[in-house]
Formats: sequence, structure tokens, C-alpha cells
Amino acid sequence: MRALRKLGPGSGFDLVDIPIPEVGPDEVLIEVRATSICGTDLHIYEWNPWAADHVSPPITVGHELTGVVVDRGANVTEPEIGQLVSAESHVVCNICAWCRTGQGHLCPKTQILGVHRDGAYAEYVVVPAQNAWPDPPNMPLSVASLQENFGNAVHTATVPSVAGRKVLVTGSGPVGAMAIAVAKALGARAVYATDISDYRLDLATTMGADRTINPLREDVAAVIDEATDGEGVDVLLEMSGAPSALEAGFASLKPGGEAALLGLTSEKFPFDIDDNIIFKGATVYGIVGRRLWQTWLEMRGLIRSGAVDLAPVITHRFSLDDYEKAFKLMQSGECGKVIMFPDPTYADGPLS
Amino acid sequence: MRALRKLGPGSGFDLVDIPIPEVGPDEVLIEVRATSICGTDLHIYEWNPWAADHVSPPITVGHELTGVVVDRGANVTEPEIGQLVSAESHVVCNICAWCRTGQGHLCPKTQILGVHRDGAYAEYVVVPAQNAWPDPPNMPLSVASLQENFGNAVHTATVPSVAGRKVLVTGSGPVGAMAIAVAKALGARAVYATDISDYRLDLATTMGADRTINPLREDVAAVIDEATDGEGVDVLLEMSGAPSALEAGFASLKPGGEAALLGLTSEKFPFDIDDNIIFKGATVYGIVGRRLWQTWLEMRGLIRSGAVDLAPVITHRFSLDDYEKAFKLMQSGECGKVIMFPDPTYADGPLS
Amino acid sequence: MRALRKLGPGSGFDLVDIPIPEVGPDEVLIEVRATSICGTDLHIYEWNPWAADHVSPPITVGHELTGVVVDRGANVTEPEIGQLVSAESHVVCNICAWCRTGQGHLCPKTQILGVHRDGAYAEYVVVPAQNAWPDPPNMPLSVASLQENFGNAVHTATVPSVAGRKVLVTGSGPVGAMAIAVAKALGARAVYATDISDYRLDLATTMGADRTINPLREDVAAVIDEATDGEGVDVLLEMSGAPSALEAGFASLKPGGEAALLGLTSEKFPFDIDDNIIFKGATVYGIVGRRLWQTWLEMRGLIRSGAVDLAPVITHRFSLDDYEKAFKLMQSGECGKVIMFPDPTYADGPLS
Amino acid sequence: MRALRKLGPGSGFDLVDIPIPEVGPDEVLIEVRATSICGTDLHIYEWNPWAADHVSPPITVGHELTGVVVDRGANVTEPEIGQLVSAESHVVCNICAWCRTGQGHLCPKTQILGVHRDGAYAEYVVVPAQNAWPDPPNMPLSVASLQENFGNAVHTATVPSVAGRKVLVTGSGPVGAMAIAVAKALGARAVYATDISDYRLDLATTMGADRTINPLREDVAAVIDEATDGEGVDVLLEMSGAPSALEAGFASLKPGGEAALLGLTSEKFPFDIDDNIIFKGATVYGIVGRRLWQTWLEMRGLIRSGAVDLAPVITHRFSLDDYEKAFKLMQSGECGKVIMFPDPTYADGPLS
Repeated sequence: MRALRKLGPGSGFDLVDIPIPEVGPDEVLIEVRATSICGTDLHIYEWNPWAADHVSPPITVGHELTGVVVDRGANVTEPEIGQLVSAESHVVCNICAWCRTGQGHLCPKTQILGVHRDGAYAEYVVVPAQNAWPDPPNMPLSVASLQENFGNAVHTATVPSVAGRKVLVTGSGPVGAMAIAVAKALGARAVYATDISDYRLDLATTMGADRTINPLREDVAAVIDEATDGEGVDVLLEMSGAPSALEAGFASLKPGGEAALLGLTSEKFPFDIDDNIIFKGATVYGIVGRRLWQTWLEMRGLIRSGAVDLAPVITHRFSLDDYEKAFKLMQSGECGKVIMFPDPTYADGPLS
Repeated sequence: MRALRKLGPGSGFDLVDIPIPEVGPDEVLIEVRATSICGTDLHIYEWNPWAADHVSPPITVGHELTGVVVDRGANVTEPEIGQLVSAESHVVCNICAWCRTGQGHLCPKTQILGVHRDGAYAEYVVVPAQNAWPDPPNMPLSVASLQENFGNAVHTATVPSVAGRKVLVTGSGPVGAMAIAVAKALGARAVYATDISDYRLDLATTMGADRTINPLREDVAAVIDEATDGEGVDVLLEMSGAPSALEAGFASLKPGGEAALLGLTSEKFPFDIDDNIIFKGATVYGIVGRRLWQTWLEMRGLIRSGAVDLAPVITHRFSLDDYEKAFKLMQSGECGKVIMFPDPTYADGPLS
Repeated sequence: MRALRKLGPGSGFDLVDIPIPEVGPDEVLIEVRATSICGTDLHIYEWNPWAADHVSPPITVGHELTGVVVDRGANVTEPEIGQLVSAESHVVCNICAWCRTGQGHLCPKTQILGVHRDGAYAEYVVVPAQNAWPDPPNMPLSVASLQENFGNAVHTATVPSVAGRKVLVTGSGPVGAMAIAVAKALGARAVYATDISDYRLDLATTMGADRTINPLREDVAAVIDEATDGEGVDVLLEMSGAPSALEAGFASLKPGGEAALLGLTSEKFPFDIDDNIIFKGATVYGIVGRRLWQTWLEMRGLIRSGAVDLAPVITHRFSLDDYEKAFKLMQSGECGKVIMFPDPTYADGPLS
Repeated sequence: MRALRKLGPGSGFDLVDIPIPEVGPDEVLIEVRATSICGTDLHIYEWNPWAADHVSPPITVGHELTGVVVDRGANVTEPEIGQLVSAESHVVCNICAWCRTGQGHLCPKTQILGVHRDGAYAEYVVVPAQNAWPDPPNMPLSVASLQENFGNAVHTATVPSVAGRKVLVTGSGPVGAMAIAVAKALGARAVYATDISDYRLDLATTMGADRTINPLREDVAAVIDEATDGEGVDVLLEMSGAPSALEAGFASLKPGGEAALLGLTSEKFPFDIDDNIIFKGATVYGIVGRRLWQTWLEMRGLIRSGAVDLAPVITHRFSLDDYEKAFKLMQSGECGKVIMFPDPTYADGPLS
């Protein structure tokens, strides 16, 4: 089969022929129909320091996908062969105290698809049966593929309480944009969104932001102060990992407010714990992955009911063969979610 | 009356004669029986940068006290004249959204006794009637005085859930030592305590710590790792404000753990939000003051039932006239709580 | 002034002339602009057993109102004279453990306007200053008046978590209808509503119910079973107090679901605690009054932002002089909220 | 092997020879070392209406056990053969929304050992591998066996917050007695316990109750009223299922209190929802089984740390051959937990 792989240290990927992977007793083999690109994949493509530290080539990349189950191991009772599934990319141990108590997203033995084991940028991928999440047959493939990433947004927006609250989303890339839609669907009174890219602020508006703020042109805390009668927002959803966004976000948070942090800062930076957390009496939540499987159930409800429409987040589609064009576009930042199709006849929209 | 005052910028205090303060319509006049020293008072004594920024001399210092109500304003219906009371040092507005919803500790208009208005190092002090907390007549005066400070410990130890959990307390000064006792009283399975002072680690042991760790001699995270079978503690109570303690504390926290931060770091420092909060899926609480009045009710229960014995925290007693000796002792760090008596005939133990 | 009073045991009211009430030092005198009728007022009108047990004539009735502050006691600093205010009808002690901890709605010394002290069906009413809730000048008077009652709906719908959930509201009278609107505004995925009156089910639909069920014609549990793929609803909001509604509501609740109970059953009835609560692992909340003052702040947000429109609930307006017509209409059940105007020139819609 | 079975409708059991059960691919075969008797087993022995409705003979009875793994299916990777294990008696589906979100105790497909599938009163029993909970080698067998039942107590006492609170336990049979010990270990300020049996009240005292109340001799609500200065208890743990205990328990609960209900009432009874739940603003939790696997982890911590000592609850030991004597003793009520040993050489105390 064809697979997009990182063959060794250094930038770039190679599209190569390798054998179809073998399926273990508790696993399923999925014929990939659509697979989407995440910022992490771009880091691996560019081979940044994080990638050099965490990824061991050779490996097939990619962790967001949808496809059809075509084979399964001896112990598997569901999903059925022929079932359309998306995949949870975190493979967990099921045995540790976290897995045993509904906190599998914190399993210390987590293996991530496309990072620690062969991933989804290929014609076929193998995942544990429990990681294969059944999708309804009428779900568009591009939407099905990005559920894994949507799950980050849902997790972030459901840990603090947003219903009836004023919410600031710092960082309006695809995950931030989806978090905006989730916050609105869950009853947020107002959602304010920041980004230094006007392209992304337009996306934020499309996804439901009541007010967008470009910190290159406006002072975030001042805008929030005016918009909230001097109180500040009830909830901060931090999706960017930029120190300046963290500063502006906490400065905009009201005393007693809640902050959920998803964006990775990648390195230590000077942080004012006194003003940002202690004097505020703030509650701060670190968010990683998706709650297994609470978040997937919540996603199902949000998508099936129509409460959240993910279509506007999907801006480009490519054949997997055109992966170079797809990753160049990702580098430009002038895009939302980018979907690749190993077999382009399954594309659910015009290819770029 | 005699009052210990900061008369202008610079170090030191002056014990001077000033008129007994007038009592407003919603206030009470308290004859001070005992008053205790807090780290904040030492900062004002030494006139550190924080003090220079926040305190406007001339002002009477001190915010921990107990005494007897000797006069009250026209609107006051309780406490009665003659009642022994302690004082909540945070004077709040009662009108803002925070005061209106049981979050008075976050009132943006908070005025602190001895910082923003005349305080307790005097023969008499005036506080709003609602800040005067009735004490039982048999409560030792030194214990009654330090309830305000004890409240910081109770607040910190009650926001996360410590019952049945393993708890790390970083910083074993008086507030940390009291937090140890609270955690044990509330059912903590094990309490580990750190400090760089062996004097304070002894105090920690006296107050119930199961294991003390001096980071000058042992690696905190390694000790915790072994003590918890590699899991980490469930709860971190950070009482020191030292960046090294924060680092060690978060390194010792288990995935999904809770951290309550009370100690002020006083300045920005390089902090690893990714490893400390996000990847851990940690929940972090900023703690300020005491919950009005939840914390005071909790204190009452802990003290009256005998679940917490504060006596070991009180190590020295002075006449207010000997304030210089008291503050020199505070500077040495070789003490727990230090109590001063405007009228030393009320001293409930031998004077130093 | 004119006041509608219960002069002694037995049915009916009398519209009589009495002196304008005197204002105490912590109170305000309000010139009533609009006052609305609650089921409790009807019970007092009809003098049912509950009323006979709880109300001591002679007393001015009514507890939902809006009006203008025209006088205030010596201690009052806000609201200002001339301010439009609504009123919290529960007068609490401010001193007990509940009042001291943001749980004033549970104050054991609660006195209710129009039940324990003279109420709002009059040209003037006196309330404690803290019970006078400032309204924006452009709020319609009929909406302003029914906030107290709206607060019951907000309280009920905010104790369980409705965001993203499927919610069943049993009883679609005015409070139930408002609860439907609140649940939708706070992100409920679907709201199902029951009532035996088709008039009220129409109101439920207007307020946002996705599906209405008349138990006289359909089996509630069967409808819910089908609508939720056999799972049951996540949340039950019980607004009727009817044993049959409680049975149907709990039968429709999913394992692990939450039930908030506001409707009073008025008497013991055979209840299956095993099936309804224990085997279900359900969490059940008793709801009384409004959280002081969390609920009022939540109401303000919901109304000002336009998230909830209360106008459809208001179906009839009367001059206070026509109170007999208003109460006869209430008895018929063919109405939503009924507003009375002591001075009908302030009516904000056509009078019936 | 020998197995104690219910062979058909009607009272009594038969000790018969049957084949050792076959182990499925995800199961383990356990050689039973100790097995304890629960009230449910007595119901099956006596063939009460509940048993007639839920149990389909022929079936091997018993669901509390400890033993050694002697065989395991092809898919099982842990526990190891030779491992001492106890068993969770609820066999759940792992697939439903409840199992997928840490709420396996609410799985609608639950099969209970000794009720729906062959149980533990035998030389061998088969359970799913995930139901076999590893025990430390030095745990007394009688303690290991009753963990399942202890889990009911831990679950009940950990859903409300008992730390620093006053707690009333209604019903001081073995589960109530263990709940008393758990509440004390988790920091309860005071625990009051009721029962109509003085034998059991003695057990309650042994397990840590601060005050016992026999409702045949004292008025429970009056005793609580006095003991709590008229406030009532913060938390009610209802372990009896007796309507009179529910009435007394709710009457003793303070406004805003929490009640956890474990005891089954077996039938509807007249319940005052207004006074017991609504006017109180109470929160009521239905408790079933053990949280999978949170409760087992909590048990491990409580037992290993020595915070709870279960030894006093174990009052009698029998050879399985003497089952008739054991069940007669259970009928008398003059016992705590009764343990039976299929091979009496493993008895960890004198046999009765």
C-alpha cells in the first residue's frame, strides 16, 4: 500500500509502498477514506525540536482519519466489518488507575497514532478495536475525519462551565474556531475570539464569535473590559500556546473565573502566578486529548443534533498524492482544516 | 491609646499615642487583647517593594487579632458589647457580584486591615460589625487571634478534595503547618511536607506530617515518587511562593491531580505550563483570603471539635511594647506564630 | 393607599384603603407599577389548607412586583430614590450560616412578602433595601414584575447541568414554560415538555420545547424512550408537583441522570425510592426560591442578552381594581402570567 | 466440585457436586478460598418475592469471595495464575455509554454473580478477568472476601462530602458499620448511628460512631437536633431501607444537606417529597454497587493504609459444609459479617 512516512531525521515526508499492516487479536484494519492534517503533523513534517524528541523514524504519519473496517482480530466483537469508523488517536492501556476510572486521556502509557505507532496517512491503518468509533453512514467523510481534533475543542469547552457565561477564546485556528462553535452550542452568553490572523478571525466569526479581536490592532484586555462592564470574562479557553495570548487571556479573566488551557507553549516563559491565578482566585484546567469516552459521546450529540456545524472549518481537500501542496498550504496559515484522500474518488468536495 | 504605626516610607515601626478611633454606624470598637504577626506585617516592617507599592503611611499596622467589643454603631445589632471576637481582616463591599454570591473573598473593593485602613497593633481597633467573629469565651486568646491566618490554611486545604488522598504541602511555615493539620483532620491518607528550615519541618511533624522533606538534602520529586508507588500525590498545597517549591510540587503531582496555590511568588518566573498543568490534566486553584463566611464556619468546627489543635503553632508571646524583639525574631525564621499583647496581663502563656 | 388584602379566614380578597407603610432604617418604600399573580396567591385567594396553615390575616397579598423607590431608611445607600426595582420576595436574616455562605434561599428565618408580611398588591410596598433589585429603565414593567417567578425557573434549570443534555420538563405552566426557555438558552440539546392542558403545551412550544406530550393522550415514558434511543433524558425538571408527573418523569430519567424538583406535591404519596432514585443512581435536587443572589445575576444576563424572551408568557393584564376578573381567569387555567397594575396608566399592553 | 445451589423455587439451598465451570476467553477460573454472606443471599435462601422475581434456578449462589486464579482464557493478560484476587460481582458490558464513561455501575446489561450467573459458594468460580481484583498476599482472606460489600459502604460514603461534616448513618448492619468507619477515616467531624438492634449499635460504636441511637428508645431527630445545636446533620447515609429510618434521617438533615441512599425499601411507601427534599433544598443521591473502578481503588487505599480496620465487622466463620448453621445465624441478626470456607483449612480464625 502507499503510505506517507517519515523515513529519518530532517524535514519532509516520503510517499512509499509498504505492506498492509497486520491486525492483532484486539485490533481492526481500516481502509482509510479521509485523513486530516493537524499542527502536530506539520511539526513532524518540519522536524522541529519537539518532533526530533518524540518521533522515532521510520514511521507512517497522521492521526486524524475515517475509513471502513476491512478486517479484525480474533477477539474483536465490534465494530463490524464494513462499518464506517473514525479513530481515537490515543491508544491507552485499559489497566492503569486512570484508564480504570474514566480518565484514560491521562494514561501514562498512551501511544499516539502517527507519533509512537504507524498512523493514518496511508491506504490502511491498524488501531485497537476500542479506538474505532462508529460513525453514522451519512456523515461526510471530511467531518468524520476531523472528529479527533474536534474532540480537543469539545474537551476544552466542556471542562469549565460555559452555559450562560461570557467566554474568551484565545487563538482562532481550527481548534479554536471549533471551540467557539461548541461554546455557543452549549449556551455561552457571548464568545470573544482573538487571533493575529484576520483569515482566522473571519473563520471565528463564521463559527459564531460575537466579537473578534486582533491583538496586533487592539488591546485585548481593554476590549474585554468594555464588553463586560469591567467585570472580565467568566471563562478563558486558551488554544494558542502563545505567551502573549496567555497574558492577555488571564488579564481579561474575572476574579473567580475559570481558564482551560489546551495550547502548548513549547517552552518555559515568565508567568505571573500571583496576578494571573492567586489574586484572581482563578481555577485553571490543563486539557489534554479527549476524555475517553465522554468526549466522543458529547461530540456525537453535538454533531448529530446539528448544534455544531463543522463544515465551515474544512477549507481544502487534496489527494494524498498531493501531500506536498497540502503541507505548503498548512505552512502558509491561510487555511482551516485540510483533508487528504488516499483514494480521491472518495473526496466529498472539490480537490485543490 | 498606644498604636504601632508606620509613619512614613522606610523600615521600622513607631509605637505612638493616638486617639481611640471613632466607630461608624455599622462598625464596632474592639479593645484588643491579643494580636499576631503575619509575614505581611514583616514586609511592611522591612518596607519591601510590595509594601512600598501597597501601603500608604501613616497607618496603624496589624490584621490578626482578638478582643472585646466595647462600643458599636447605631445600626449594629450584633455582636453584643462585651463579646469576645476575632476579626476577618478583609473589609468587603457587600454589594458587588462577588459579595452577593458567597465569593466576598474576591470583592474588587476589598480593604485590608493594617494595609489599607488602621489595623490591630493597638489598644483599640474599629472593624465593620460583620467582620467581628464571635469567639467562645473559653478560647485561648492566642488561638483566637490567629484564626484569620488559620483561615488561609483552611481555605487552601478545603478547595481541593483531600479526604482519602495523598497530599504534599510545600512550605511548612505557620500557615503550611496549620494546613497539614487541616488536611489530616479532613481525612488525608498521607501528608508530605517540605521546607528548607529544619525548625519548620519539626513543626510540620508536630502538626501531623507523615514525612518531611528538606529539599536542601533530598530530591522532593524522588521522595514522593517512592512514597506513592510512582503515582505522585493527589493534591498539592503550595504555601511558600518559592519557584523551586512550585517546580518540585508540580513535578510530584499525579496526572489529574489538584493544586491549590496560596504562597505569593512576588514576581514573574519561568514556568512550564505544558508539563506542570496541561500534559498533567491538572486542576489549579488560586487561593486568596478566606471564603466569607464559609471558611470561618469551617474553622469553628475544626477548632471546637478538637480536630485541629493550633497550640503547637504558637511559639512566642511578647508585650506589644517589645515589638522590636518580636519582629527581630520573625526575621530569624526560628519561630512559629508570634503573639503580641497590648496589655500583657492578658498573655495566655509566658512572655519572651 | 389602596391595597388588596386578606382580612380573615375564607375565600376572596378585599380592596381597601390603608395607610402607606412606614419605611424602616434598612428598608425602601416602593411605589408599585406592576404586580403579577402566582399560584400561591391563588391558594391564598381560595384559602386552601396550605394558606390556612401559613397565612395570618389581615395581610396585604402579593409578592411579585416592580416599582419605583420613593423613600428609604437612614441606613440605605442603594438603591437610589427614583430607581426602578423588582423585588426578591424572600426576606432573610443575613446572619445565619446559610445567609453567611451564599445559601440565603435556605435561611430558616425567611419571611415571604404577601405571606408573612404585607405584600405587593397595593399602591406601595416596603421591602429591605437588599431585596430591591435595580432594573434597567427600558425593561417592560410586566417583565420586570415577573422576575421573581422567573427566578424559580432559572434556579431549577441551573442546578443540574443542562448544556448539551436532553431535558424533560414536567408541567408547562408559566414557571415550566420559562424553564423550557432557560434550558434552551443554556444549551440543552432537546427539551421535552408535558402538561395535561393543551393551552399550556402551546405555550411550551412557543417557549422552545422541541416536543410536547399530553399524558392524557400519550405515554410519557414511551415517547421519551423513543426520542432518546432508549436511554432516557439526562435531566428532569419537575415543575408540577403532580405524583403522576413525578412517576412519569423518573421513569423517563436515564441511569445516572439528574432531577430538580420544584413543584410541591402538597402531601405524602406512595413513592418508589428504589426504582426512581437508588437503582438509577440518580441525583435529586430540591429547589426552593432563588439563590441569593446568584439567580438574580443569572436572570439579568439571560434577559439583557436576549437569550430568553419572557413576553410570550405574559398573556393578560388587568387594573388592580379588576382583581376579581384576574383571579377568576387564574382559576380557569386558560392563561400564562397575569399582571395587575395599581395605576393602569402604566400598563405596558392592552388591559383585559 | 462442591457447590451450594438453589435448585428450584422455594426456601433452602443444596450442597451438590457439579463440574468445575469452563473458563471463557476473557475469563479467569478462581479457586475460592473464602466467601461471605450478604443480605441478598439470605433473601435467595428464604426465597422472598424479590428472589422469586430475579433469580432463575438452578444456579450457584454467592457473590462475595476471594481466591486464587488457577486458569485463564486465551485473551487474558492479567491477573497472573497464582494471584490472590477478590471479585467485583457486577459483570458489565464495557460497551455502553455508562461503561464507556466510568459509570459501569449503572450498566443496563449488568449480570450479578450468584443472581444472574453461577456464583461463589463453591470450590471454584469463573469471572471475567477484569472483575478479578488483585489483593496483596498478606490480606486476611476474610477481609479480602468482604471487599465487595465494603465497596457499597465506600461508595455511599464518598458520593456526598463527609470531610469536616456531621454525618448520620441510619442502619448499623455490616454495611452501615463499615460506612461509619469510612466516614471517620475521611474526616467526618461526628458520626451518629441508628439501629433497632443493640447488638448492631455496639458494632457501630466499635467502628467509630460518636453517638448511637436506638429509635425504639430515643427520638432520632431530637437527639440530632440537640447534638447539632439545632442545625441538623450535613450528611445522611441511609443504609437500612426502612421507611421509618428514611423519615427520621431526612427529619435530621439540615437545609442544604446531602443524603446518600443505599438501603432498598423493597416497596413504595408514603414519602413527603416537599418536606424531605424540596423545602430543604436537599441533594439526594441513589447509590448502587461500586463505581467501577474508582471505588475499588479507594478501598485499596483505605485498607492498606490502615485507615479502616474491617476486622471487627467479621464475627463468625464456618466451613461451607456448615452453611445451614451460617444461614440460621444470619436469620437471627446476632452477627456481623459471616464468612464461609469451601476448604476450612484456609480459615483465618476459629470456626463456629
